[in-house]
Amino acid sequence: MSATAATNYKEIIENAIKAIHARTFYAQYPEHPKAYGEEAPVKGLEAFNNQLGKSFQGLLQQNPESWAGEEASPYTGKSLGVTYPVFEVETTIVRAGRAFSAWKNVSVDTRAEILVDALERVKNRFFEIAHATQHSTGQSFMMSFQASGPHASDRALEALAVGYEELSRFPANVTWEKPMGKTSVVLQKQFKPVPKGISLCIGCSTFPIWNSVPGIFASLITGNTVIVKPHPKSVYPIAIVVSEIQNALQAKGIDINVCQLAVDSSAKLITKQLAEHQLIKLIDYTGGSTFGNYIESIPGKTTFTEKAGVNSVILDSVVDLKPVVQNLSFAVSLYSGQMCTAPQNFFIPAGGIKQGHTVIPYEEVKKALVDAIAGIANHPQMGPGTYGAVQNPLTVKRVNSVRELDATILHDSKPVVNAEFPEARVISPIVLEVDAKDSGIYEEELFGPIVIIVKTKDTAQSIELAKDLVEKHGAITFSAYTTDEATATTITEELESVFAPVSLNLTGMIWVNQHAGFSDFHVTGGNPAGNASFTNPEYVNKRFVWIGHRRVA
Amino acid sequence: MSATAATNYKEIIENAIKAIHARTFYAQYPEHPKAYGEEAPVKGLEAFNNQLGKSFQGLLQQNPESWAGEEASPYTGKSLGVTYPVFEVETTIVRAGRAFSAWKNVSVDTRAEILVDALERVKNRFFEIAHATQHSTGQSFMMSFQASGPHASDRALEALAVGYEELSRFPANVTWEKPMGKTSVVLQKQFKPVPKGISLCIGCSTFPIWNSVPGIFASLITGNTVIVKPHPKSVYPIAIVVSEIQNALQAKGIDINVCQLAVDSSAKLITKQLAEHQLIKLIDYTGGSTFGNYIESIPGKTTFTEKAGVNSVILDSVVDLKPVVQNLSFAVSLYSGQMCTAPQNFFIPAGGIKQGHTVIPYEEVKKALVDAIAGIANHPQMGPGTYGAVQNPLTVKRVNSVRELDATILHDSKPVVNAEFPEARVISPIVLEVDAKDSGIYEEELFGPIVIIVKTKDTAQSIELAKDLVEKHGAITFSAYTTDEATATTITEELESVFAPVSLNLTGMIWVNQHAGFSDFHVTGGNPAGNASFTNPEYVNKRFVWIGHRRVA
Repeated sequence: MSATAATNYKEIIENAIKAIHARTFYAQYPEHPKAYGEEAPVKGLEAFNNQLGKSFQGLLQQNPESWAGEEASPYTGKSLGVTYPVFEVETTIVRAGRAFSAWKNVSVDTRAEILVDALERVKNRFFEIAHATQHSTGQSFMMSFQASGPHASDRALEALAVGYEELSRFPANVTWEKPMGKTSVVLQKQFKPVPKGISLCIGCSTFPIWNSVPGIFASLITGNTVIVKPHPKSVYPIAIVVSEIQNALQAKGIDINVCQLAVDSSAKLITKQLAEHQLIKLIDYTGGSTFGNYIESIPGKTTFTEKAGVNSVILDSVVDLKPVVQNLSFAVSLYSGQMCTAPQNFFIPAGGIKQGHTVIPYEEVKKALVDAIAGIANHPQMGPGTYGAVQNPLTVKRVNSVRELDATILHDSKPVVNAEFPEARVISPIVLEVDAKDSGIYEEELFGPIVIIVKTKDTAQSIELAKDLVEKHGAITFSAYTTDEATATTITEELESVFAPVSLNLTGMIWVNQHAGFSDFHVTGGNPAGNASFTNPEYVNKRFVWIGHRRVA
Repeated sequence: MSATAATNYKEIIENAIKAIHARTFYAQYPEHPKAYGEEAPVKGLEAFNNQLGKSFQGLLQQNPESWAGEEASPYTGKSLGVTYPVFEVETTIVRAGRAFSAWKNVSVDTRAEILVDALERVKNRFFEIAHATQHSTGQSFMMSFQASGPHASDRALEALAVGYEELSRFPANVTWEKPMGKTSVVLQKQFKPVPKGISLCIGCSTFPIWNSVPGIFASLITGNTVIVKPHPKSVYPIAIVVSEIQNALQAKGIDINVCQLAVDSSAKLITKQLAEHQLIKLIDYTGGSTFGNYIESIPGKTTFTEKAGVNSVILDSVVDLKPVVQNLSFAVSLYSGQMCTAPQNFFIPAGGIKQGHTVIPYEEVKKALVDAIAGIANHPQMGPGTYGAVQNPLTVKRVNSVRELDATILHDSKPVVNAEFPEARVISPIVLEVDAKDSGIYEEELFGPIVIIVKTKDTAQSIELAKDLVEKHGAITFSAYTTDEATATTITEELESVFAPVSLNLTGMIWVNQHAGFSDFHVTGGNPAGNASFTNPEYVNKRFVWIGHRRVA
């Protein structure tokens, strides 16, 4: 336990709780790499290079059955050569159960102290984490640093803080005295938030830390033990986080199996075996909808899912089209559309959109958007820097296959050269155009750099179609551009009625893809894109049960 | 709108919120009938007598298809002759949907003001409600008054207050400014708790108000509209409550279909049709486990269930056995075991139990308990006053059928004469004795006045069996008697691990059956007896979705 963490954990959590209530800008971990000193980048790269081709020794879990690893860099095409300890599912469950018996009785404050300490330890590894994330997910270095480093740790702290607050909602002990005329009944009452048991966190390949730590920290602060099952193609980043949680536990003399990594291989996945195990009570999941729906349907589990959604943009009217298409072209290009928050469908009225007192015809709006997207593709630095690399070769296949659809190709996807990594799997976005009636094409999530312009009759139809999409297929983000207040109100009311959040008129250095910790809810939990939200009260409340005991005083 | 309610609703809610956090004794509505003045009882009885044999005209729902009613008094055996308006399911849904469009936009404060006003209006009808409850449920008059009157209204206020607090958790509007070196990004953010839609409340025959109002008020305060589907044998009491909610809505000029009564008949139940309707998003349910499990399994619904549980008592050691068996005999006799909180199984060690430094042999403990139960049965006033009447003739059949079980009958059930109502359906409890191995007999809920004494090897086995029962079949209450602190700790820890609350050493004027509003959680939501709890934060949080909108400032 570092002296700093031990002294400051309460202050860190209290500040986080204040920020969560205020929902103004807040960050515990600065997002600029420079904030971490001059040595940190060098040491981080060194640590990463030293790990390549070796077994990952950081975990404290004992006696693995074997070692396995299959990560390959989307930037080099080469295997990372890192292997991780593999355990029988039953071994992991038994250890989690044993650790639970102790962890549930650890005080909330001690849990909080340990978890803040873990975050402080993770902070010291942000640069190694950034390289590990880059070479497993294909994110650019900068996105890898921010998303897996400070942004993820802020989200972890957010979940931890919401949990801390909820656990303290009711007094541990009270004297209850009921007046009964001349006499009274006196009871001693005890209120305990009792954790549900063993929690399973199922990670994804594109955001192995960001999407996993909220569930891990929410479950841990509420007294549950956690089994982290990473995607076999993105293990290294979260392995570092789990190892630092284990270090923080060990420093306090607590069973490190409170948080275990359960690595599997594509050839022998253990996710279902874990998820269906009767001792698993809570499941956090990020990934595709089919598997997510299966997870939600397992009887007797409390689940927190983030699945696929189809994110839309409505273009109605603008002050100035140029900054709008600049903003949108970046939003679709960033990490090649592999963010769950990236827009896919652009609803544009056939009559064009208003710009001040003039109307820009549909064809011109379309061209402006396509040109802006092409501008990034054709820019030798900006393109590769924005796109990162494609994590999964299937995503490239998907881009190729959409060419066969009955849609006009407005801009075709091309291989893009990354000067630093000539072997990198990089492609520019493909832009399709369809008519409003072709919902068969645009109603599905087409994961990756695929953009669809949907020509609608008018904004009223754009709203109707967009709303319908959210209701049927879910959405994580929603973006609209209008200078008309009545239209803004209609869009907001219609979209919130299907539980999608609306981002209005975003231009400049803010994109719809970004959800800020301590302020923006990530996923609402109310539409088919997922049943949970980072971090509303329900996200932690469902992980424990309030029990009230009473006895005659 | 009464002037008092309009002025005081904020104070009433704020006091309730304080009480909920403090969890000390609190009551907004006094439980003593005398607190309501001398005229109230007379007027209440008059209103009840005037209603018998007539159509119930209090509801403001327009154009019924027909009128129906089938309530019969367990005290007189006669039909109440009260009929209620009947509507097509689709009519009710369409009206609820139309009302939702308006209600969701009514401010939280106006909703709160209306709902507090409704409770004040209900207060004026406590005595009529008491008679209506007595003659549909079979509860004694005093229990009818307290359970359906002040205790129910306190629970309604509790749910309302928890909802009010949760809805105000985040600011409606904030300016978010992210520093970006020399410049900054500024967004206006809006946080809205968006209600889920139409809520269905399925009532039960024994506690038609107490078990229904928490869900009704929780759904209404969070902006959902509510369809109340009462048990066809217990409509009158909740019809009064719904009519007063409608009066309070009308007084504020709001569509009274925000809260509708949907009456059906035993011959043509509409519960499934309502529950499975795609526009029903939330379901509150009280009743048997089989139907409750079905309710929980309907895809796409948020459900709040209170099902059956098997409540147990462990006898280990006592200061004085006499007040213990007095307390327990009353707990099993009160309303003839028709409370979901009533104990059924009594685990007593074969070696007897300690009383101070002596040991009372098993046979003596058993005899003391049976004698106390028989004492109530044989007492001409206390028996009928405690038992009330049996709501459902099937409960009498069940008592008769347990005689066929492979168990020793320690005390047989007999018809009991109620001097005031000679035709009342009243029977005394049957007490059976079985061995620990006969779990086939005691592991089921045997609803009604059925008590089972289970002879165990020792307290350790009692705990093991009791815990196992809770885990498999659920429990709403749990009671234990021990003078040994280590045993008390073990019992508490073991039972809380399966999410049952423990009442320890209750004697005197407090019984395990009673759960106090603003302090005791009713049902934990963590075991098979139900998935919801009056009133933890989850009980209201799950009824709406936090949506965060943002726009460039």
